[in-house]
Parts: sequence; C-alpha cells; structure tokens
Amino acid sequence: MENRIRNNFNRQGFMTTLGASLVLIERGKVVIECSYNETLSQQNGFFHAGVLTSIADSACGYAAYTHMPEDSDVLSVEFKINLLKPARADKILAIASVLQAGKTLVVCEAIVTDSDQKKIYAKMTATMITIRNASPA
Amino acid sequence: MENRIRNNFNRQGFMTTLGASLVLIERGKVVIECSYNETLSQQNGFFHAGVLTSIADSACGYAAYTHMPEDSDVLSVEFKINLLKPARADKILAIASVLQAGKTLVVCEAIVTDSDQKKIYAKMTATMITIRNASPA
Amino acid sequence: MENRIRNNFNRQGFMTTLGASLVLIERGKVVIECSYNETLSQQNGFFHAGVLTSIADSACGYAAYTHMPEDSDVLSVEFKINLLKPARADKILAIASVLQAGKTLVVCEAIVTDSDQKKIYAKMTATMITIRNASPA
Amino acid sequence: MENRIRNNFNRQGFMTTLGASLVLIERGKVVIECSYNETLSQQNGFFHAGVLTSIADSACGYAAYTHMPEDSDVLSVEFKINLLKPARADKILAIASVLQAGKTLVVCEAIVTDSDQKKIYAKMTATMITIRNASPA
Repeated sequence: MENRIRNNFNRQGFMTTLGASLVLIERGKVVIECSYNETLSQQNGFFHAGVLTSIADSACGYAAYTHMPEDSDVLSVEFKINLLKPARADKILAIASVLQAGKTLVVCEAIVTDSDQKKIYAKMTATMITIRNASPA
Repeated sequence: MENRIRNNFNRQGFMTTLGASLVLIERGKVVIECSYNETLSQQNGFFHAGVLTSIADSACGYAAYTHMPEDSDVLSVEFKINLLKPARADKILAIASVLQAGKTLVVCEAIVTDSDQKKIYAKMTATMITIRNASPA
Repeated sequence: MENRIRNNFNRQGFMTTLGASLVLIERGKVVIECSYNETLSQQNGFFHAGVLTSIADSACGYAAYTHMPEDSDVLSVEFKINLLKPARADKILAIASVLQAGKTLVVCEAIVTDSDQKKIYAKMTATMITIRNASPA
Repeated sequence: MENRIRNNFNRQGFMTTLGASLVLIERGKVVIECSYNETLSQQNGFFHAGVLTSIADSACGYAAYTHMPEDSDVLSVEFKINLLKPARADKILAIASVLQAGKTLVVCEAIVTDSDQKKIYAKMTATMITIRNASPA
C-alpha cells in the first residue's frame, strides 16, 4: 500500500512543484508536509490558500486510497475548506483521515497545521471516489 | 481598481509559480488563465485539483475585491469546489463573479473551463472577507 | 418521470411538514415552493436556514433524479449552502438545476428566492448519488 | 449564557416543529436532540437530510453564540454537510463544537449521531457571524 501511494505521489508533478512530501502513510491516515517558499505565497507573504488546499486535497485522496482496492485509482469529487487563520510558518502539515469509507465514495477530513500541530490554519472535508480497473500508468 | 488588483496579483508568488495571469478585471468579475505544464499535474497527467482550486480561489478573491474599499485587503474565509470532470486541456480559465456583496463578506462563484468555455471542469463557491485599514504592503 | 418524482415527493413526510410543493419538473430542473408559517421560523421570524436548505436539497435531489434510470433511487451525498440574506417572504422557491450528470454522481445547484425570483436568499451546490436497483417502496 | 440560548431556541418555531430540544449547553459546545417521527422522513422512511441539517445548523449556531457578546445575535453564513449513512434511528443528536472563534466569524463543526453516539450519520462544517447590537426581540 505504501509503495502504491508513494508511486502515485511521485507521478503528481504538482507535489514536486510545491516541494511537498509524504511523511506518514497508515491505513486511513496520511500526512503531507510542505516548507515555506516565496513561490508559494499570497499577497501578504503567507502561504497561499491554494497551497494549503492542494496538500490537504492530496492527503485526503491518499487517506481514502488506503481503503481502496489495489487496481483502483482515486479522484476528488469535491471538497470544502475553511481558512481559519493566515498560515505564516516555516513548514505546514496536512493531516488527513478517513471519516467514512464506502465502496464507491470515501469521505475524509484534513487539518492543516504548523509543524508542532499547535495552530490549525485550515480544515477540509473532502469526498473521494474509487475509480475501478484503473490501468497501471 | 485594475491597478490595485494587478499589483496585488503580482505580489502572489504562487500565481507566478502556476504561470497564471489575469485576463479580465471588471467590477464583480475576474478571469485568471493558466497554461498546462507537467509541473501542475496530478498522477494521470491532468491538471491537479489544487491548481484549479488555486486559480478559482484567487479569481473569486479579486472579484470580491472589486467591491471592497480602496484601503482594504481581501482574505478567503472558505470555499467549496466540485471537480466535475478531469481537466486535460492546454489552457484553463477560472471565471469568477460576485453573487452577493455585503460590507464584511462577499460571496463569489467561479467556474473553471477550457479556453473555449465549452467544458466546465469545476465549480466553486467562495466566501471572502474585507480586511479594513490594510496597510499598503 | 413526473409521476415517479411526484410519488417519491409524496412519500417524504418532511415535505408535508414544511407545507412544500412541487411546482415544476423538467429534465434537469425542479422547483419546490414553500409558504411562510411561524412553524418554520428562526429566532427573528425569518425562515429558518434549515427550511431553505431542506427544500433546496429536495429540489436538487429531484433535478438529479430526472437524469437517473427508472429503477434507481437518489440520495444526497453532500451539499453546501451560502445564506446570502435573511429570508423574510410570504413564499420562497427553491430552483434546482443539474450542473453535471454522471452515471453515479449528479452535481446540482439551487438558488432559493422570493416568489418573484428577484431576491436570492441562498445558493446551494449538491452532490447526489444514483442508487441502482432500488426496490419500489 | 444558558438562559440567553434557551430563550433564543424557544423563539425558533422550526425547532418546535422538529420536536428538537437542547440537551447540552457549554462554552463552545451545544447538543440538540430530535426524536423520529414520520413527519420528518424522506422517501424511504429515514430522517430527511434537511432535518439532520437543521438541527446541526442550530447546534453550530448556538455553539458559536457561546463565544459571542451578550448583546449580539448569530446568523449562519454558510455550511456544508456530508451525509455519511442513512439515518434510521429513534433519536438523533447534533453535537456541535467551535473550531475557531474570531471577533466576527466563528467556525463550528457538528456530527449527527444516534443516541449512543456510535453511528455518525452526518458531518457539518459551518461559518457563523456575530451580529452586533442586536435588539432584544
């Protein structure tokens, strides 16, 4: 499972662009981290909401993926995120977990925090869908 | 207004990273475009959902900003996006408009489309907040 | 199709409780109306957000249902609603339409308006799922 | 605070219609319960999604309200709910807590469960706004 997810992650060019990396993969839980860089900023120098959202979305997708069959792929159906406070930090974590795993749909939640997990910058709820019989890429 | 938005956009390092650009600024409507690059991909070579979301969020933010006082800044409170179909295109557009402009909160919608605006890849609803007395950055 | 939807609607005890009725059924579009009553109020005498949400959810569900096979049933996966202004009106309408119809999931939007459709009180985006081989109730 | 919330709740005609009652009020946490009745059903005899949503919305609103000044009122800005499984139960609980309390906006979460809190039927995230200088009703 971990290999399957790491291979999939490595094929996401956008995660490389963000400088994001997988730091935890367990059944039902995935953590992605991302270090601050000016290339990821919004107008006031904080992390852009889109960065928080992108790593939270990927973390939710992989958390869902841990509940899916081997020959499947995962796609985001939708997500909603609340930006709770401006994210000014050296490093942020997106910590995703599965709330409900069905055969077709998996609902996940994620928080985006600082590296000490003391500040919560954002909260996401996401719906992921299992794509069956996905061909190996 | 257009200058204010262009200056603000140019301070978003993340928009440069995405290769995104402002293509329309009107009162209550903003369009941002983004060309495909492997650095923006998810595992199957489509645009990553995070890219669609990032430009839709920024487009919503600036659409809201056109309704805000000159000395204010804009922050995303929350947004929700439905990913309607995989986005494989040379170029995508995020087309945002204001649904309801209040003194404090502005609610916006955006669609993300191909360059012909024939395919809708995603639909966002976003809540933006006016930050008063923002110091010039 | 119209009969199928009217029968289904009549089995929703909650729609009777709200005094809601189906006023339009077309492929991809459904309208439900609801008249004001103190039994539907929040603390200031407006329609409770839950009432707007309930009729918008049902309208989205039936709009989705017009795209589903005859032997299927429809369930709400999730929805998000923005309450744009307090709803003080004699009658409100929930006007739902299909944004994207897939085999499994159908994404819908709804606005809740006054009877003249001049004021928009709320905007919903909803994801509906097709339940196959539903037994006739 | 408890009196203020109970008085406000009692002015919500819709909560009476649902047969809902406040079962816990603490700073940052509110629980509302609702017993099953055919008047609250969807087409298959489950609780209508609108009922789950209505009590979750009110619970979030009051949880937010515990963080607001005495002379204020609370309104829902927006919420999103995932319906995780059909709710067939004698009684359901909406358990809401505050995720982030700002001066203007308060972000809350709620789960809707059975009376044993073993099954989670739905998960909501909601944004509430403080209305200052609200006149006593």
